[in-house]
Amino acid sequence: MNFSSDNATGASPEILAALAAANDGAVPSYGDDPVTARLAARFGEIFEREVAVFPVVSGTAANALALATLCPPHGAIFCHRESHIAVDECTAPEFFSGGARLVLLDGEDGKIAPATIAAALPDYRRGIHSAKPSVVSITQATEFGACYKPDEIAALAACAHANGMALHMDGARFANALAFLKCSPAELSWRAGVNVLSFGATKNGALMAEAVVFFREARDFEYRRKKAGHLISKMRFLSAQLEAYLEDGRWLKTAARANALARMLGDGLSKIAGAEIAHPIEANGVFVRLPNATVARLRQKGARFLDWAPPKDGRTLVRLVCSFATPEEDIERFLEVAS
Amino acid sequence: MNFSSDNATGASPEILAALAAANDGAVPSYGDDPVTARLAARFGEIFEREVAVFPVVSGTAANALALATLCPPHGAIFCHRESHIAVDECTAPEFFSGGARLVLLDGEDGKIAPATIAAALPDYRRGIHSAKPSVVSITQATEFGACYKPDEIAALAACAHANGMALHMDGARFANALAFLKCSPAELSWRAGVNVLSFGATKNGALMAEAVVFFREARDFEYRRKKAGHLISKMRFLSAQLEAYLEDGRWLKTAARANALARMLGDGLSKIAGAEIAHPIEANGVFVRLPNATVARLRQKGARFLDWAPPKDGRTLVRLVCSFATPEEDIERFLEVAS
Amino acid sequence: MNFSSDNATGASPEILAALAAANDGAVPSYGDDPVTARLAARFGEIFEREVAVFPVVSGTAANALALATLCPPHGAIFCHRESHIAVDECTAPEFFSGGARLVLLDGEDGKIAPATIAAALPDYRRGIHSAKPSVVSITQATEFGACYKPDEIAALAACAHANGMALHMDGARFANALAFLKCSPAELSWRAGVNVLSFGATKNGALMAEAVVFFREARDFEYRRKKAGHLISKMRFLSAQLEAYLEDGRWLKTAARANALARMLGDGLSKIAGAEIAHPIEANGVFVRLPNATVARLRQKGARFLDWAPPKDGRTLVRLVCSFATPEEDIERFLEVAS
Amino acid sequence: MNFSSDNATGASPEILAALAAANDGAVPSYGDDPVTARLAARFGEIFEREVAVFPVVSGTAANALALATLCPPHGAIFCHRESHIAVDECTAPEFFSGGARLVLLDGEDGKIAPATIAAALPDYRRGIHSAKPSVVSITQATEFGACYKPDEIAALAACAHANGMALHMDGARFANALAFLKCSPAELSWRAGVNVLSFGATKNGALMAEAVVFFREARDFEYRRKKAGHLISKMRFLSAQLEAYLEDGRWLKTAARANALARMLGDGLSKIAGAEIAHPIEANGVFVRLPNATVARLRQKGARFLDWAPPKDGRTLVRLVCSFATPEEDIERFLEVAS
Repeated sequence: MNFSSDNATGASPEILAALAAANDGAVPSYGDDPVTARLAARFGEIFEREVAVFPVVSGTAANALALATLCPPHGAIFCHRESHIAVDECTAPEFFSGGARLVLLDGEDGKIAPATIAAALPDYRRGIHSAKPSVVSITQATEFGACYKPDEIAALAACAHANGMALHMDGARFANALAFLKCSPAELSWRAGVNVLSFGATKNGALMAEAVVFFREARDFEYRRKKAGHLISKMRFLSAQLEAYLEDGRWLKTAARANALARMLGDGLSKIAGAEIAHPIEANGVFVRLPNATVARLRQKGARFLDWAPPKDGRTLVRLVCSFATPEEDIERFLEVAS
Repeated sequence: MNFSSDNATGASPEILAALAAANDGAVPSYGDDPVTARLAARFGEIFEREVAVFPVVSGTAANALALATLCPPHGAIFCHRESHIAVDECTAPEFFSGGARLVLLDGEDGKIAPATIAAALPDYRRGIHSAKPSVVSITQATEFGACYKPDEIAALAACAHANGMALHMDGARFANALAFLKCSPAELSWRAGVNVLSFGATKNGALMAEAVVFFREARDFEYRRKKAGHLISKMRFLSAQLEAYLEDGRWLKTAARANALARMLGDGLSKIAGAEIAHPIEANGVFVRLPNATVARLRQKGARFLDWAPPKDGRTLVRLVCSFATPEEDIERFLEVAS
Repeated sequence: MNFSSDNATGASPEILAALAAANDGAVPSYGDDPVTARLAARFGEIFEREVAVFPVVSGTAANALALATLCPPHGAIFCHRESHIAVDECTAPEFFSGGARLVLLDGEDGKIAPATIAAALPDYRRGIHSAKPSVVSITQATEFGACYKPDEIAALAACAHANGMALHMDGARFANALAFLKCSPAELSWRAGVNVLSFGATKNGALMAEAVVFFREARDFEYRRKKAGHLISKMRFLSAQLEAYLEDGRWLKTAARANALARMLGDGLSKIAGAEIAHPIEANGVFVRLPNATVARLRQKGARFLDWAPPKDGRTLVRLVCSFATPEEDIERFLEVAS
Repeated sequence: MNFSSDNATGASPEILAALAAANDGAVPSYGDDPVTARLAARFGEIFEREVAVFPVVSGTAANALALATLCPPHGAIFCHRESHIAVDECTAPEFFSGGARLVLLDGEDGKIAPATIAAALPDYRRGIHSAKPSVVSITQATEFGACYKPDEIAALAACAHANGMALHMDGARFANALAFLKCSPAELSWRAGVNVLSFGATKNGALMAEAVVFFREARDFEYRRKKAGHLISKMRFLSAQLEAYLEDGRWLKTAARANALARMLGDGLSKIAGAEIAHPIEANGVFVRLPNATVARLRQKGARFLDWAPPKDGRTLVRLVCSFATPEEDIERFLEVAS
């Protein structure tokens, strides 16, 4: 019963198999191999336009490299107070950008709204005394498992662009958002105004593979990736993961399964006395307040999950994450113990 | 007949198999998994002392992170003019360190000598006007396939330490050096005075795996790795490569095979009229001057290799790299065409 | 009637005269001159202990260089949400430190309290996923004109040190705080636990001169200053300002005058119907809510000052800053117009 | 007899007087004052076109800020091996640019030639493995007192621009070059293809004042200056130095005097047995090889100057720098002792 993180899960068998398939023979290194060559076309099909795609090994690398391309050293990045770039990536955005500032915004369910950005902007409109507003970064799905709809993204993009800022999307769980919203990758990204997307795969079945997808000129991104030690010499092993991930809609199926399990878990929990769902369950995470006794009992029976906040008023807000590989019986067992 | 790079080769089957073996079940992420836990002990055995080991995905990351830990932003790193950190890592050492300076030294076969360091030092002893001498970085085996012997390393370490500098070893081909010198990992590293080692595995059979090995306090290395996006969430897949690499002396066997093939290739070439071996063949690389006509004929027959310098006086200096996976018949065929 | 900033004022005549006096003859550059040599001893007397003193030309430089010495690239700096380093120095702290994070804290009158730091710390105690708590930075006097008393500083130092953090004081208005609290420089700095002080002079009579004062080892500060372009070649002209500033207690007299004028201005305003003093007047700044009509009338009569926030409920919070050179009649005239 | 550096000299009386004149009354800070407002127009007249001018306090700041604007973090800056940015500014160019690489070139008298750049470029044309050629930086007059003629600059600019690089000029002694070449500031800068000029004043009579002059869009230079702590609050005191420096052609007169004194010194030395002038004397520096006994005698009589290299074959290469303020009798006395 491991609901601690979608990172706790291994890789999908098909992606593992793709590594073996890619292993044959000698091929040029640093991305000049046939697998990587196919990748740009594959992403082009999926996003229904020409894109520039750069595989990397971690979400932090994807985000920080993308942000550094969009944000000057003296720039400000507007993001949610509890976004991954704000609380889980040490100081990677600052490091890669050469010292940019994160401006932390509030918002329900991990989402930020154009009005919040507009309210924060005047403090950054005093000339060179404060950082220059340069990027809005949103997370899809959010840290609290909510999904931005295309029109919400479009409104944020309009706000960002009107203020000379680019729109970055941290799509570590982009597939989960697609599976929930049932719209196309294009609708959820560039058509809504996203400039650069951190396209996640690791949490949804890869071993270690993400991609930075540019919908505008990628400028010197390749140099930045190399300079950061993120250009892999045997690149085929990174690209093969992404290729297998996208093959036959696998990425959407695994995401849909993870979402469905979270839904099932949430539905079950919502019927338990004393339990309170804290955020809408739209992706693969469930945030629920449980009585402290229930929390203790679950842990004693071997369940693993995160306390999101210290106990309060007899209850604890916990985070439960499902993945493509979570056994269905784990859900049943968890609900059984929790009841 | 691909002799272009040891990066052009795939992974060894055993390392691929180890990935599958590590895939079972859910385990804590970011390095709190059992495979990673075993790794420190394993490296401890191999180096005959307690060490701090940090897996990363690329040699550039290993080098730049190690150097940044040893060198302040205003420091100088003394290295060979043609070392990997100087010519093949974009500006990673400068980026990770916050702007340190590389001091480029000459030396036969890619080696630097204490006397060369001593001669360069006075320019960096004028107080704060020049960068502060902080690190000596050497490459084992060198870019030209030569190996530093333990006493050569000890002399460099003595010079470095006497001048307040640390000794870093870029061991992208550390296994090849061990296989050639037939000494122990300890003799070739900390016993000779090395402070931090970039321990390579990718060129010798891993998919993407290197390790930074500290023989002194690792200070905040973990923060630096995270901040650079090099802490992998599903760490088990990185650690499993290193574990399989070290298992049953596999790493030394594959390195020995690569070295032997290079030796065989060099021996054959040395008998060919007009060919001239340019550097001692101690590891898995062969540097040879060949008549331009021979170079053209080889390429026409499908051989892949690097021109190390533009043609001169009717000949070209080329680099031929063998790997653990190079087919023996490729050597024979190459020699046949070259003759 | 210029109350816009203490930076709007020129220099004191004695400091200007000191520049001319320092101009005689040729002397060694980069700080090896006799004026600079005297400075360390002078600061030593004033602080009643040996200190390391480094003159620089701006408060931003003083703060950012000091913080970079205390904080690693992956560190967190805890400071008030409206402190100068947070809102008025673009992204200098991030730049100089190599990407550290500012943690913004609330607090009355621009002061932060140990309890606020303690409450923020758990978010930065999750290992390498968040920045490492490294520095507490306080401002003396605060942006709102309040002064930390020695025991308040001592409590903050105790909290910082107990948590492995250093205590930095931005003393851009250190003299004003001393003049108000009537304690010694030592009591207000190292005796209370301050590790490094940004010692201001520009706002209180210098042309452009601040000093970074270390009460602990200064490590490689000199390199950092040089690397940042802040080592002045004709250093005597920087040191001479500081020497004249400190001579005969001039710095305390000018600060006392500025404070007294602010006091007078505040007293007068507090008697005006509809005016409300927003923060205790302890240094040289007055924060007051004035009816919008009053604000408009004052501006029309030529008064210059800052709107601190947009108008609200018919009134505007404005900031009025007095300096050593503010004419007393400006106060009277301002009060007359405001009444 | 102080010939150690033009930094050893004080400021010219007129520039000191300008500080006092600028001291009157309260004016807006951070560059919104009347003196600074006049500066752009003044530079515009002098350079015969609209320019963007940014005063700073040191040559290192001017150079590093200019280079950071022209060079991405992954860029390469081509410069002379003994240029100030290479040997006298610690690692400021690397720091400000976010880790760019200096490519050190040889050249007579401190000058670099297009052919040398062309010869170095292929090593930086291997894609993302090496730094991206971004800037050519030249020094006018050079560290060895030689001056680039307009056609030499034009040839360098053509080479730089043809290769996608900008041309930066470190004009710490720009006035000395103008005085020697007797051409206009425009001819020696933008008309010859210079993109950004570090315009020096400190060595030629200012206390601490340089300016970065942009002949192309200045992009976010203002942010970079602020972020680096180089935006002075009481900016009038920086701008006033530059204004007085340029007034009535003062800068060219003082430079011409320094040059003439160096010429006189060189002429005298060239007649002394055993003395050998090492570089053409075009600006205010004299490089001469003197018998060691002569060197010792001069020092004993109180002469101050730099040994440029360790003694060799009984002679020492020394540097003698004249300034606008060097007394003529010092030249005579020096020659007398040296004879």
